[in-house]
Amino acid sequence: MHNFRGSVLIEDEFLRDGLQNESHLFTIEQKLNFLSDLENAGVKRIQVGSFVHPKWVPQMVDTDELFTRLSPHDGVIYTALVLNKVGLDRALAVGVKHLSMSVSASETHSMKNTNRSVDEARAAIAPTIEKALGEGVSVRAGIQSALGCGFEGKIPVDRVIDIARSFSSMGVQEINIADTAGLANPRQVFDICLRLRDAISSDTKLSLHLHDTRGLGIANMVAGLQAGVRIFDAALGGLGGCPFVPEATGNIATEDAAFACEQLGLNTGIDWHALRAPVAKAEAMLDRRLPGRVSHVPTPPWQKDELVGAGVG
Amino acid sequence: MHNFRGSVLIEDEFLRDGLQNESHLFTIEQKLNFLSDLENAGVKRIQVGSFVHPKWVPQMVDTDELFTRLSPHDGVIYTALVLNKVGLDRALAVGVKHLSMSVSASETHSMKNTNRSVDEARAAIAPTIEKALGEGVSVRAGIQSALGCGFEGKIPVDRVIDIARSFSSMGVQEINIADTAGLANPRQVFDICLRLRDAISSDTKLSLHLHDTRGLGIANMVAGLQAGVRIFDAALGGLGGCPFVPEATGNIATEDAAFACEQLGLNTGIDWHALRAPVAKAEAMLDRRLPGRVSHVPTPPWQKDELVGAGVG
Repeated sequence: MHNFRGSVLIEDEFLRDGLQNESHLFTIEQKLNFLSDLENAGVKRIQVGSFVHPKWVPQMVDTDELFTRLSPHDGVIYTALVLNKVGLDRALAVGVKHLSMSVSASETHSMKNTNRSVDEARAAIAPTIEKALGEGVSVRAGIQSALGCGFEGKIPVDRVIDIARSFSSMGVQEINIADTAGLANPRQVFDICLRLRDAISSDTKLSLHLHDTRGLGIANMVAGLQAGVRIFDAALGGLGGCPFVPEATGNIATEDAAFACEQLGLNTGIDWHALRAPVAKAEAMLDRRLPGRVSHVPTPPWQKDELVGAGVG
Repeated sequence: MHNFRGSVLIEDEFLRDGLQNESHLFTIEQKLNFLSDLENAGVKRIQVGSFVHPKWVPQMVDTDELFTRLSPHDGVIYTALVLNKVGLDRALAVGVKHLSMSVSASETHSMKNTNRSVDEARAAIAPTIEKALGEGVSVRAGIQSALGCGFEGKIPVDRVIDIARSFSSMGVQEINIADTAGLANPRQVFDICLRLRDAISSDTKLSLHLHDTRGLGIANMVAGLQAGVRIFDAALGGLGGCPFVPEATGNIATEDAAFACEQLGLNTGIDWHALRAPVAKAEAMLDRRLPGRVSHVPTPPWQKDELVGAGVG
């Protein structure tokens, strides 16, 4: 078991994917507070919100204002999700430099989510991606339901490869493979990442968005690491899901992902201990225990310099 | 990512490691009922209880009677934990054919658990193992806290190898490596399994007892599979822990382990869907949600014959 060297970038999506399904509306001050917590814990990329019509996702109503009010920390990337040109224009107006856009690899999921077929959604997003790139924005192009669909079941790998290849040839900086319904397994993750790595430009980074719906979230992250992936989405406390796929609950937890990387000898820059307090705060606000694990148990009784991985029992 | 071929044996420890910490005492009829549930779901090895003094673990008071009352199913191994010769004699008296015995690799854990040093505990268990083997019983020798200790931190790999080698040379059928406090990581599991495989007789099987305390339980199982291990402990619902290590909560769940193997293309013989009802029953009796995942979410929308692993997106 190799490939455990270097650094890992964890994008926290608590403020977007985490909150978007919650009926309890967070104020902008509360969001700015969580943003500070994440920055202070060393999270290096934070998805702040989505530029979506508030009618669809009321929790995201203040994304524009969040970007105007946040004080950027050195070395932290603030990103957001946009769905179309209207959203892109809003993002550009508040100076966002990094954006996520995506399509679904599942016809049924695509229709339910966007009322478009996969090909229609691909055609619709292409000019938005091109405009963003033309404006000097870093674009991460995502493929939802890439590893299985709650409606359709298995998704042909070739379809995912085809979408990824076209995104890559458009010049996006990163391609994000999303296990929207939490249906992936480690062998599948490993294999598709190797195939994607061969299929897309070496300039295009690969990232994974994993859910822990069926207990395989962190195992899938480890498989991604083994395949050389070094960017992963997660959410503080393991909050999150997809509003259109009811059974898909729970991103992998940022603190668990950071802990796993640390134990494997990989650097994330995140002090996962510093996430205990914000997890507890989120649990108090949401009035339930969140699924993340390491914030609920004692810190392992060893120092970082005792962590090697290979050869340390 | 290779080594996903063949069959996997999952030993369910709900009735022993699962129940031993629970203050709610289960009746023998309730235990026999769970035993039937496990048999009917296709579990092929079941740890029925421990032959320990009821003063220490009141929940295990009826282990002898359980063995006399259970109706063995073809192809199912019924096993138990014994700590010493007194326990072995009780096990032999009720005809048990497969037993687990163990020592801790941590001096502090060993003292707290048995009031003996590691070497004293090894010397004390040796004649019991030899007597059991002489009586034709299959013996699984376990090494607790082998992958980290809540009191001592890292455990030297050489100590674990040394204990395993001596067990192997005594002729035990299987060596069980236990992550008693849930401190292991996948890289460590993979590495130690390869080293153990080289160190012990090829006649001695290797098994893993994993806890999901810090979210790495299933990832550690996948690492064990990659290293060629084909026997894993688990407990229905993810119940369990260790009474002497307070933070160590939660075996990997039998249903999640079986699901993970199935998705990876490995056969366990377990129909994890059939474990939904017993998980729900246990939750009702214990009045709390158990940590296992797959019994709480919909079945993935594909058939077994669509499961291949490699190449299936």
